[in-house]
Amino acid sequence: MVTPLIDNDTLDVDGLERLIERTIAGGIHGLFLLGTTGEFASLSYKIREELIERSCKLVNGRVPVLVGISDSAFTESLNLANKAAEYGADAVVITPPYYFSASQPELLEYLERIMLHMPLPLFIYNMPVHTKVSFAPETVKAAANIPGIIGMKDSSANLAYFNQISHLLQDRPDFTFMVGPEEIMSQFVLLGGHGGVNGGANMFPKLYVDLYNASAARDFDKIIPLQQKVMQISSTIYSVGQYGSSYLKGLKCALSVMGVCSDFMAEPFHKFNAPERKKIEKALDELNYKELL
Amino acid sequence: MVTPLIDNDTLDVDGLERLIERTIAGGIHGLFLLGTTGEFASLSYKIREELIERSCKLVNGRVPVLVGISDSAFTESLNLANKAAEYGADAVVITPPYYFSASQPELLEYLERIMLHMPLPLFIYNMPVHTKVSFAPETVKAAANIPGIIGMKDSSANLAYFNQISHLLQDRPDFTFMVGPEEIMSQFVLLGGHGGVNGGANMFPKLYVDLYNASAARDFDKIIPLQQKVMQISSTIYSVGQYGSSYLKGLKCALSVMGVCSDFMAEPFHKFNAPERKKIEKALDELNYKELL
Amino acid sequence: MVTPLIDNDTLDVDGLERLIERTIAGGIHGLFLLGTTGEFASLSYKIREELIERSCKLVNGRVPVLVGISDSAFTESLNLANKAAEYGADAVVITPPYYFSASQPELLEYLERIMLHMPLPLFIYNMPVHTKVSFAPETVKAAANIPGIIGMKDSSANLAYFNQISHLLQDRPDFTFMVGPEEIMSQFVLLGGHGGVNGGANMFPKLYVDLYNASAARDFDKIIPLQQKVMQISSTIYSVGQYGSSYLKGLKCALSVMGVCSDFMAEPFHKFNAPERKKIEKALDELNYKELL
Amino acid sequence: MVTPLIDNDTLDVDGLERLIERTIAGGIHGLFLLGTTGEFASLSYKIREELIERSCKLVNGRVPVLVGISDSAFTESLNLANKAAEYGADAVVITPPYYFSASQPELLEYLERIMLHMPLPLFIYNMPVHTKVSFAPETVKAAANIPGIIGMKDSSANLAYFNQISHLLQDRPDFTFMVGPEEIMSQFVLLGGHGGVNGGANMFPKLYVDLYNASAARDFDKIIPLQQKVMQISSTIYSVGQYGSSYLKGLKCALSVMGVCSDFMAEPFHKFNAPERKKIEKALDELNYKELL
Repeated sequence: MVTPLIDNDTLDVDGLERLIERTIAGGIHGLFLLGTTGEFASLSYKIREELIERSCKLVNGRVPVLVGISDSAFTESLNLANKAAEYGADAVVITPPYYFSASQPELLEYLERIMLHMPLPLFIYNMPVHTKVSFAPETVKAAANIPGIIGMKDSSANLAYFNQISHLLQDRPDFTFMVGPEEIMSQFVLLGGHGGVNGGANMFPKLYVDLYNASAARDFDKIIPLQQKVMQISSTIYSVGQYGSSYLKGLKCALSVMGVCSDFMAEPFHKFNAPERKKIEKALDELNYKELL
Repeated sequence: MVTPLIDNDTLDVDGLERLIERTIAGGIHGLFLLGTTGEFASLSYKIREELIERSCKLVNGRVPVLVGISDSAFTESLNLANKAAEYGADAVVITPPYYFSASQPELLEYLERIMLHMPLPLFIYNMPVHTKVSFAPETVKAAANIPGIIGMKDSSANLAYFNQISHLLQDRPDFTFMVGPEEIMSQFVLLGGHGGVNGGANMFPKLYVDLYNASAARDFDKIIPLQQKVMQISSTIYSVGQYGSSYLKGLKCALSVMGVCSDFMAEPFHKFNAPERKKIEKALDELNYKELL
Repeated sequence: MVTPLIDNDTLDVDGLERLIERTIAGGIHGLFLLGTTGEFASLSYKIREELIERSCKLVNGRVPVLVGISDSAFTESLNLANKAAEYGADAVVITPPYYFSASQPELLEYLERIMLHMPLPLFIYNMPVHTKVSFAPETVKAAANIPGIIGMKDSSANLAYFNQISHLLQDRPDFTFMVGPEEIMSQFVLLGGHGGVNGGANMFPKLYVDLYNASAARDFDKIIPLQQKVMQISSTIYSVGQYGSSYLKGLKCALSVMGVCSDFMAEPFHKFNAPERKKIEKALDELNYKELL
Repeated sequence: MVTPLIDNDTLDVDGLERLIERTIAGGIHGLFLLGTTGEFASLSYKIREELIERSCKLVNGRVPVLVGISDSAFTESLNLANKAAEYGADAVVITPPYYFSASQPELLEYLERIMLHMPLPLFIYNMPVHTKVSFAPETVKAAANIPGIIGMKDSSANLAYFNQISHLLQDRPDFTFMVGPEEIMSQFVLLGGHGGVNGGANMFPKLYVDLYNASAARDFDKIIPLQQKVMQISSTIYSVGQYGSSYLKGLKCALSVMGVCSDFMAEPFHKFNAPERKKIEKALDELNYKELL
């Protein structure tokens, strides 16, 4: 879930409500707050806490709520986890610390130590573009034996890596594998992956839920046109602008064009200007996006 | 195809013949010489030429032969392409130059210029781990319009990237997309990819051909156990040893254990010693590998 | 300055006092809290604030105090800066945001915006190993014109880069250039650099001050043996252990051996065990370290 | 030394002669052919051999000639070394293999094996931007004990790294340390480094020789204005254009403007167009470059 913002320190409260209502109405199976798409790292703790509190209240148990607690500081991650538990979230999600680069033994020990105090079940979150460090397959295998660690989200887009980890843990059907990039969610689910945590579902929740369902059912008549739409979104809405942040900017801009929430972005990013916004409007038109709702 | 070697400058001629005969007998649809798995970059030009000549003779038109011509020097790539044409190869394959890092416009211009002199159709080959540079999706889109460029092999393992490129070129059904990592070949083919260039087929050609056929037919009863075997190979044979070269070392070691060809590796790599070889033997046993032949 | 810790959330208050007193006694020209050597990213905000407060009180104006305010979140950086101002620090220091990678125009805008609210003068801090992003020379040149930005600390160890930036700003003698790695401080100062922010001064403040003075005076009779000592420290105390964190671990271990402060390290790192500690003890002996005090 | 070219496969023979004569007249202490500045990786073997032959003849023993033999293939490196010996070169220079990334033990073994057949003394050449792999300090220390390895050129620009290696080998005054980036040559020599291999000496040999001599003599009255010129060259001539190759393009363009040799660049690079050439002309004017000759 994106974090709707009015400025660097103010939630777009109305946008947040609209966003949550329409994703739940769209059939999503859960909500992940404060992930990369949620710009967690750019947000103050105050606003992160407010987001958790408001979102949990708005969801009110209709779907599970997962909360990102990634931080460079162990204690701040735990503080966030405690807030998440207090407000009724269902699980938390953590990347490796992202300033200092931990070695694999240090990463494993980090997880062991943080789980001693963790009030909620935890997913590990692989996001090497931003954190520099990947969880090695053997580290994941060992982490899956730490009580309370219940699954993994991988946003590396390296499906060979994620297939390898799923294979290493094939005797652990209770361990949940979720894939980040929506472009490969269908393929991951077709061969047994458990699901996707896909930013595009902020815009078109039903599209991604339908694609998940079709993939789980191996129904190619449905998969092919849905995957086509997903790739069109990726090649248009996420591909405007010249910097690494075009996915995030395009997504927030589209939500603003669609009237869902503000497209303000926390520092160090900025929302698209008029020319880029025009391109997003055009891309939405070409998608016949109203049919996707 | 691996390059069977007796020492740094001597082909294992008998091994080469056994390797080619058994992969063709296993049903492969083509042979790719002098790719990364073929250690092309570590081989002298003399031995590269000898390999092309001998392989083309041995294959004798039974399957298409593709020849890697990647080089840091434009002229040496063309020289190799001319040799490949002379000996009857069907196409050539090229990565970006891998010492100097070209920008995207420079990469495109590089392809345009080299195609002016190219005697055979060409596949572009994305291998960023070794070449540092990726072909950007827009570069591939433009390259697909250069006469003579007929397809792409992607070994990035980033399936989101490769899906995006396939999507950008959906109006070009004549352009061929082949994926490197065997761990994701099935998933790629399930959603329309054209095939795999998979190192494991040196060992078990039938396994990978069967998986390709099952994936193209969307026959999950067959896919699931075959994919299981592919992942077992990846998690055992390719995962012995501590350096980045464990895939190549494991593959050549397994071929030696199976009596196919020598496991000598060209500098800067070296074949496994006895303890690692024991692990490969054990991994092959656990695969019941004779049933895979 | 290292951050002396008893555990993840408790300052080693006695150690902090000893550390500050002996570095001031050693003649240092200023104190930099909450830099990379201070493990800032691993510390909770509570403990960062406590460290600022206690240190400013202990220093009590005897030398300037600089405070690291780097954070992935704009607002948390400002919060820290306000605390630093409140407790009487003299300046603050900031890296690029280190989760999301900003482009150069975004980096410059980030600095412009944060300076609108900044209560203290600011140094920019280049640390690409940890932040992934470098300040491009042209970005530094533009940043030097933002009111309140008074200097730069570069920890890239790329002295060609830092020389180039100093050259670009040669008409700005008021802009201060300080270099991170102590191994090159002398060379930087010899050709006009303004100083070093050197972790080794936690152990041997006089050594680094003497080397700075000798370098500023171009007194090679003094420089050569002092530089020799600095390189010996680098090759021994900072080179124990196999991971990227050996500098930090060796430094804290040596401080503990010398009786200055605890060697506890915040997650995700851990202090050296007995065998590594033995090596540090031996290295200190070989340095005749008591003569360096 | 740059490689003067008329096209991808033709040496600019007249330019080569002018280049060699004026660098020798400028007082250089040796000539390094086929380094990165010499675009070695982009040249065919035929042209590399021709360059070695012609250059050795032209130099005719007036200064030592070093020849780059870096290659991804062990045997091709040896072939080049044998050519270099045959034509009378004095030493050869080698980077790590640059397609496959060798581990440190593999790198050391690579050097040991290649030295068994090496007809000339060898310098190791650290150039991680292009080769991906650095020689670790301990690898250099071990390599310095291999008979025939007589020195190292480091082009990492990481002077802390190079200082550390010099320190580790302080008991080996016979082992020669030369630094690549001209921006730090003076600082390296001031603290005992042995010299620079500086591309700018193609344009202004006397400038770099004078700076070397002044640095070796610690004569700051001379160093300061000379270093100023070197930095001005770096900030202007090497900083035109937007890609990683602006150093090489600017250098060759300046040589062309000065009438020394052609600015043709081997694929994948291209010479500057008119607008960039204008900037180089202006930069040369501002340098009062005729006074530097």
